[in-house]
Amino acid sequence: MKKSLSQKVFLELDLPGGADTIGDRDRIVRALIPQFNHIKFSMETLIKYYKVLRESNWQITVSLIWTGDYWELVRIEKGDTTQKHYGYAVDLGSTTVFMQLIDLNTGTILAEDSVFNNQIAFGEDILSRIFYAKGKEEHLQEIKKYTIDSIRTLMEKLEKNTGILSTDCDIMVLGGNTTMVHFLLGIDPWFIFHTPYTPTFNHFGFLRSELLDLPFNGLLYAFPSVANYLGGDVVSGILASDMTEKSEMALYIDIGTNGEMVLGNDRFLLTIAGAAGPALEGGISKHGMQAKPGAVDTVKIQNNEMILTTIENRKPVGICGSGIVDLIAEMLLEGWIDFGGRFNEGKSDRIVKREGDWAVAYAWEHESASGEELLFTETDIAMYLDTKAAANTMIEILLENSGVEASAVQRVYMAGAFGKYMNLESAITIGLYPDLPRDRFVRIGNGSLQGAYALLMNRELIEKVEEIYASMNYLQLEEAADFLTKMYAAKFLPHTNLNLYPTVKEKLLNRSNNKYSM
Amino acid sequence: MKKSLSQKVFLELDLPGGADTIGDRDRIVRALIPQFNHIKFSMETLIKYYKVLRESNWQITVSLIWTGDYWELVRIEKGDTTQKHYGYAVDLGSTTVFMQLIDLNTGTILAEDSVFNNQIAFGEDILSRIFYAKGKEEHLQEIKKYTIDSIRTLMEKLEKNTGILSTDCDIMVLGGNTTMVHFLLGIDPWFIFHTPYTPTFNHFGFLRSELLDLPFNGLLYAFPSVANYLGGDVVSGILASDMTEKSEMALYIDIGTNGEMVLGNDRFLLTIAGAAGPALEGGISKHGMQAKPGAVDTVKIQNNEMILTTIENRKPVGICGSGIVDLIAEMLLEGWIDFGGRFNEGKSDRIVKREGDWAVAYAWEHESASGEELLFTETDIAMYLDTKAAANTMIEILLENSGVEASAVQRVYMAGAFGKYMNLESAITIGLYPDLPRDRFVRIGNGSLQGAYALLMNRELIEKVEEIYASMNYLQLEEAADFLTKMYAAKFLPHTNLNLYPTVKEKLLNRSNNKYSM
Repeated sequence: MKKSLSQKVFLELDLPGGADTIGDRDRIVRALIPQFNHIKFSMETLIKYYKVLRESNWQITVSLIWTGDYWELVRIEKGDTTQKHYGYAVDLGSTTVFMQLIDLNTGTILAEDSVFNNQIAFGEDILSRIFYAKGKEEHLQEIKKYTIDSIRTLMEKLEKNTGILSTDCDIMVLGGNTTMVHFLLGIDPWFIFHTPYTPTFNHFGFLRSELLDLPFNGLLYAFPSVANYLGGDVVSGILASDMTEKSEMALYIDIGTNGEMVLGNDRFLLTIAGAAGPALEGGISKHGMQAKPGAVDTVKIQNNEMILTTIENRKPVGICGSGIVDLIAEMLLEGWIDFGGRFNEGKSDRIVKREGDWAVAYAWEHESASGEELLFTETDIAMYLDTKAAANTMIEILLENSGVEASAVQRVYMAGAFGKYMNLESAITIGLYPDLPRDRFVRIGNGSLQGAYALLMNRELIEKVEEIYASMNYLQLEEAADFLTKMYAAKFLPHTNLNLYPTVKEKLLNRSNNKYSM
Repeated sequence: MKKSLSQKVFLELDLPGGADTIGDRDRIVRALIPQFNHIKFSMETLIKYYKVLRESNWQITVSLIWTGDYWELVRIEKGDTTQKHYGYAVDLGSTTVFMQLIDLNTGTILAEDSVFNNQIAFGEDILSRIFYAKGKEEHLQEIKKYTIDSIRTLMEKLEKNTGILSTDCDIMVLGGNTTMVHFLLGIDPWFIFHTPYTPTFNHFGFLRSELLDLPFNGLLYAFPSVANYLGGDVVSGILASDMTEKSEMALYIDIGTNGEMVLGNDRFLLTIAGAAGPALEGGISKHGMQAKPGAVDTVKIQNNEMILTTIENRKPVGICGSGIVDLIAEMLLEGWIDFGGRFNEGKSDRIVKREGDWAVAYAWEHESASGEELLFTETDIAMYLDTKAAANTMIEILLENSGVEASAVQRVYMAGAFGKYMNLESAITIGLYPDLPRDRFVRIGNGSLQGAYALLMNRELIEKVEEIYASMNYLQLEEAADFLTKMYAAKFLPHTNLNLYPTVKEKLLNRSNNKYSM
């Protein structure tokens, strides 16, 4: 049976007296030793709780957390409170922070919620925040505080939703990228992004909640970061995917602001990561937007007419990541654009020239919420192709370096919000994902959050995390051979080498009105 | 070769770059692992020092402290500072705090000093302080602060004396009794003195200096406490005595406000402890005083005339512990008092009756500093006998419980200020110490401070400390058989059974003017 990372134990201690005058701390440890071999019981914890013992006539519940090396005793309560046993799983994203409150006795997710990362106040993109903090201790501490406040806000929300006090929680497991966990500790992440690209730490380990001024009573664990662009969120996702437990060849793909790819199985893990740019989150276009009400989220072209849907069926406000993928794929298949991403003038009256740039007007003035024409331009497509080429090249380098044929990949795990919501056919059509049988693709959603949940509910995985961390062979994107050549070849729809995309090739040939030249 | 508890290591780290992008913390640990197997490098330490690495171009000195289980990395400095390697040995006494600043590379004591424990503001005796703090968190924190301030004051003094900054010190080793270390952490010591007499903790362990707001950069270690009256100061003293390394039967005696006795050798340790009262420190008499200028410190009676010396040869102000022992011993030998501590009227014109109580006027009005007659009364003697009887009984119980004859004790270690300054002949005469060949007695002075020094300079002793702690079999004074009968028998000078004191018996017979009736 799986056992959670934290354990509560009710103790009816031997009453002191006679020759048995061992100290309170040693008395508790003595009672626990038969079951918990190696226990750490810090003075900080003792100072916080020592009065409870006598107030409860030596009948107490202690909370212990398994750290992989030892059990840390983090809390003492009066009487038997073993039924109240809670923890948090957190994904500390640079844009959004997700949190689940979990009943550790049953595994039930009692509540979950998300908030925007308050760090956004210092810049939408991570680099702005890094520059803001660089070398300025006050700024750094400011960002630290904002980061912690995001987590506190979620704790308060979950407390309100469930009535379960944050102070009744013993453990938080967090997945976050390398920069996020540096900010969380108030450590300048400048060197992560500056040559020679080394973080200040890889292992975060278990830290007391007090150190981070978080209002729960226990330890915070964050997954270790492998390298600058390969953070604990990916390690957590790999754990959630379970790919290291199987012999089948698998590819883990998380494309967001950054792209992170992992290829491997139970024998090896090869990883690569790099900046993907905001393209996939709708951040490239003037009218690009996050997946909020009014965002165009699917696009079809039938009979040369564009059919859009929007989130919450509102008048279109702009276009989000999944809409962009559809839009480009459909325009390619219908011949509105060519394989270089250039518009074919006259294919539709929606293909227009504005301020010297060709574009598709996916909503006219009278169709949009703002009364403004909504455009996706040739420049937008080019930017998108850069992002897509980066992702594509990373996968190619992974395969090449491990001598694995693309067709040998039995499973593709698509993590992250983009992987969750985009249309898989469209994504393959534009060459973002390899052209494999569709049943090999699995959308795992927020892998970082799921890995945190998995570890919370199964303490044995703490060793697995170390195994994953240790076995992740990290390729530097910039140092891969033919990197630029490969990038260039990938900047086409779906790819310069169309034979890599047989189903796309077929679709292109089949669409009756297609004028795409092979 | 003995190696100190702390070690400084100069590292010229591999410069990060290329594929070697491991984090800073992991880079340091990687460099140390071949020599230091198990390293703890906390986030607190990393946050404090991470900027040093790049400022020093990866040439750093790290300070590591051996905790018995692992090495804790506590400090990082620029360049090679291995020559600057300092630590503190401290005896945290309830009356006086002693401190040494030690060059850990050579073992040289660079400076030492002492101050009164600031806690005295809350009561001369420990019990007053305990009552002041009992159940009142603000009072408790006040005493904690005063305790820490005493230590800080000494650190400042030693810094001034030597020019060595406290911030350049990595380690402090402290011996203190059970109550003192509880106060040091701001933990209510009430339960140490209240049934069932259990401390809140036995092991203090290694704590970060920041936790105690002490201005050095490293860890504070305090010796473990065995029981309420048997603190880390005694464990430290036993370590200093080296008695557990030898087969000879030894007795360790520390009599101050409390009495602590340990009997044993390399095969066993049996201990007992109890309140001794302030008698030995001059605290019983109206004119009793600490060993300060003007205190009568030796007494002789020759030709029925009293010959006194005082500290710094001033006019007498009062009498201190060593003076009292001499006074009682000489009066006994000269027949001024009988073996029950009662004055023999008429033996000297200094034997006077004041306010209904017989007394010896050891200084007349014109002889004393204050112009006041200085008296030591029959009541004072009775109180003294209580203290002496307690000490004597404790030794007797130790011997009886371990089946050791007094004569089999090969070595008597006399620790503490009283043990250092009193006249051994007098102390045996009044039955405070067993009547053994005088060459078996060794004055070791401040055992607590010496043990702290010993551990600082020899890391292997950390295991020895645990052995001593674990092997100390503690007898509860109150639960010993015949405790009260033994106490009563010991309330005579030197003892009801004079045959236990053969040399005293001989002296009594020899002194020509002796009228003592056998």
